[in-house]
Amino acid sequence: MSKQQIGVIGLAVMGKNLALNIESRGFSVSVFNRSAEKTEEFLAEAKGKNVVGTYSIEEFVQSLETPRKILLMVKAGVPTDATIEQLLPHLDKGDILIDGGNTLYTDTQRRNKDLAESGIHFIGTGVSGGEEGALKGPSIMPGGQKEAFDLVQPILEAISAKVEGDPCCTYIGPDGAGHYVKMVHNGIEYGDMQLISEAYFLMKNVLGLTADELHEVFAEWNKGELDSYLIEITADIFTKKDDETGKPLVDVILDTAGQKGTGKWTSKSALDLGVPLPIITESVFARFISAMKEERQKASKILSGPAAKPFEGNKEELIEAVRKALYMSKICSYAQGFAQMRAASEEYNWDLKYGDIAMIFRGGCIIRAAFLQKIKDAYDKEPQLANLLLDSYFKEIVESYQGALRQILTVAINNGVPVPCFSSALSYYDSYRTETLPANLLQAQRDYFGAHTYQRVDKEGIFHTEWMQK
Amino acid sequence: MSKQQIGVIGLAVMGKNLALNIESRGFSVSVFNRSAEKTEEFLAEAKGKNVVGTYSIEEFVQSLETPRKILLMVKAGVPTDATIEQLLPHLDKGDILIDGGNTLYTDTQRRNKDLAESGIHFIGTGVSGGEEGALKGPSIMPGGQKEAFDLVQPILEAISAKVEGDPCCTYIGPDGAGHYVKMVHNGIEYGDMQLISEAYFLMKNVLGLTADELHEVFAEWNKGELDSYLIEITADIFTKKDDETGKPLVDVILDTAGQKGTGKWTSKSALDLGVPLPIITESVFARFISAMKEERQKASKILSGPAAKPFEGNKEELIEAVRKALYMSKICSYAQGFAQMRAASEEYNWDLKYGDIAMIFRGGCIIRAAFLQKIKDAYDKEPQLANLLLDSYFKEIVESYQGALRQILTVAINNGVPVPCFSSALSYYDSYRTETLPANLLQAQRDYFGAHTYQRVDKEGIFHTEWMQK
Repeated sequence: MSKQQIGVIGLAVMGKNLALNIESRGFSVSVFNRSAEKTEEFLAEAKGKNVVGTYSIEEFVQSLETPRKILLMVKAGVPTDATIEQLLPHLDKGDILIDGGNTLYTDTQRRNKDLAESGIHFIGTGVSGGEEGALKGPSIMPGGQKEAFDLVQPILEAISAKVEGDPCCTYIGPDGAGHYVKMVHNGIEYGDMQLISEAYFLMKNVLGLTADELHEVFAEWNKGELDSYLIEITADIFTKKDDETGKPLVDVILDTAGQKGTGKWTSKSALDLGVPLPIITESVFARFISAMKEERQKASKILSGPAAKPFEGNKEELIEAVRKALYMSKICSYAQGFAQMRAASEEYNWDLKYGDIAMIFRGGCIIRAAFLQKIKDAYDKEPQLANLLLDSYFKEIVESYQGALRQILTVAINNGVPVPCFSSALSYYDSYRTETLPANLLQAQRDYFGAHTYQRVDKEGIFHTEWMQK
Repeated sequence: MSKQQIGVIGLAVMGKNLALNIESRGFSVSVFNRSAEKTEEFLAEAKGKNVVGTYSIEEFVQSLETPRKILLMVKAGVPTDATIEQLLPHLDKGDILIDGGNTLYTDTQRRNKDLAESGIHFIGTGVSGGEEGALKGPSIMPGGQKEAFDLVQPILEAISAKVEGDPCCTYIGPDGAGHYVKMVHNGIEYGDMQLISEAYFLMKNVLGLTADELHEVFAEWNKGELDSYLIEITADIFTKKDDETGKPLVDVILDTAGQKGTGKWTSKSALDLGVPLPIITESVFARFISAMKEERQKASKILSGPAAKPFEGNKEELIEAVRKALYMSKICSYAQGFAQMRAASEEYNWDLKYGDIAMIFRGGCIIRAAFLQKIKDAYDKEPQLANLLLDSYFKEIVESYQGALRQILTVAINNGVPVPCFSSALSYYDSYRTETLPANLLQAQRDYFGAHTYQRVDKEGIFHTEWMQK
């Protein structure tokens, strides 16, 4: 019996769709699933395709060409470790395991290191694009041994999304680099979604826009600088009517956001690296607050806000200001996310290529957007750019859009409309461009009560003052 | 030779001062330090006092009454584990180890559990108040076995700060509860310090107040609702002149804030518990941004802000608005910190007594403040209060001060003065009191691209829509 070119373990929706995607690009695929029923179901669905079902780990491993290429699409965490343990006795040196799950990068670092001792290559790869992306072409962010990536590159590139013919797949870096970049991608996605939600909330509450009008606004925005998948689906969402009530579907959806933890991971990593990541972190907290529905219902009956004032300015102008504020805030959020990747790259010696990362985000994934090309351009000009805001394109945008952001914040604040991420974006911009912040007072306090010492503005050294001596 | 009532290991400044404090309350103390020189130095300093120096772990342990009470004042982390390992062979069942270091609560949970297997009690205790507090009376937050706490209670209460005769020491709860509460205390301290810094920055940049005028303002504020240690030392700081330049010392201190990690721990725990903690987290990020001094210097030459406009309103009124904004933001920050403690208490079964915690914060520690009595009152009225903002006292303050916060935010935003924590406080207030947030759109997006499902406002259940079908 001839051997297959790649194997997929785990036939939940993502694994299934990736297997079909791989087969559709001309590769032969073996599949294995813990419960045989899923395998049967899959084979029935894939009838006539170049797919071989197997019913034991041993049979699965034996069905593959060497060096074996095995894509793990099982649940992150303990199930992934258990699957690796089962595979290990059957593998040979040089075989390649590819974890395509939503795995925490530190787990990938550990597995990569542990398996390297047995001569097994381990690639942790981010796969973004949801079910549809998995089937038709996701954005793929593989990290691990470069020599192992080279062997799987043809398959990963073939199945990835393409933008202008370029595959949305590139080698990210050693060990956990791929899963790290996927994690930051998801954090950025949290930020984008919350910023869009705040824009929506402002236009709904202050301008009273209807779902139809909101559709028009977002559809229009999608033709310009904000051109992106999330803006596109937002425009789309406002057109959907609820079958039962006839209302816009968005209006009958409960305002409690779920989450799977990758946003939180991004914030925790930023905290550990000492990188400011306020926008994404505020977006994580915003999801938490949204989930406290009952408590908010009670609080809304107890705590008052400012009296509602009908908006008296020019509607179109305010909508345009919201658009500019959204684009500026989005730029600040990406500046933070990319600065975090840079800090991680230095911490873990990953040598990340930020421009390449921006390029593979252009297709397949949730944050795909036209403006990622601008990020690529910025890093082409200056590969070690400290912060995107310092690039000439982004500098010009944020400088000229800051007035709009300041304006809509003033409107939101005075109307009692919560805009945590818009607020945070401006605070970040104003902090980042301020040569002297008030941390001198903070250092004085720390030295006063804890003898933590301070530096001076006028000479080198570490100083301490006995503050209580007059 | 008679045995001592308690032993202290580690004679760095905190250990030394706590040993002297204990002795001064009439308890006999044995001390041990890894390097004998420190022990000699200490004994010379403590001449004539009821203190016994020892020069081996064995001698140290043998010098103590049973059940032994041993206060560990060594570095958190590995050194603490190493010291425990050295002690263990010499201890008997029922002996009590007390870790008074700045230990991460999960380490305390692990040690408490591991040691309990050998019948050794382990108390992890927060000690706040810096060097001076350690010597004269800190705030003490012990967690661990209640029966072990009962045995050390007389000593801990004796050495703690007193407010109106009450010791600032109370049993917090099992295992890591004491170190957890100390961690949140420190997070709150980060928030308080950043809020004060933002108030200072606004008054300095918008109103052009001098150090002398700032002293007057803070000294005045310290007579009212804001009465607290941090406001007091802030007032004090502005009076200090630099010997070399004759300038106010605060003006020659470099604006790069240091940190020891407890603020970051607090944020990470909030993220794990799913509790919104934006103010403290923004204060951690503000320290990070402050530390990027060189980058900010460069950025300040590239990125512009709004043109400076001289303030034309009433100075005194704006100062009063800043005061109100500071008090309201502080209340929001404590509301978040106490809500986080509540979530942790539920997660770890600690049965925390929030009112008692507020009471022991009233003296000795860095965040001591008159308004903690109001927190105590709130929990006396309603021990399971979901959020401090719902208490009648705090509700009235925030409702009537929100206008001031909105006003000074508008001023800051339009003058380009970064106020991340003030902004975040208002976003939190406005989010928390809003019955319907825009997370319905966010859930629609998640369901659109990831089939993550949603709930409805009008009936129970979990729903999914095929958004792309028209």
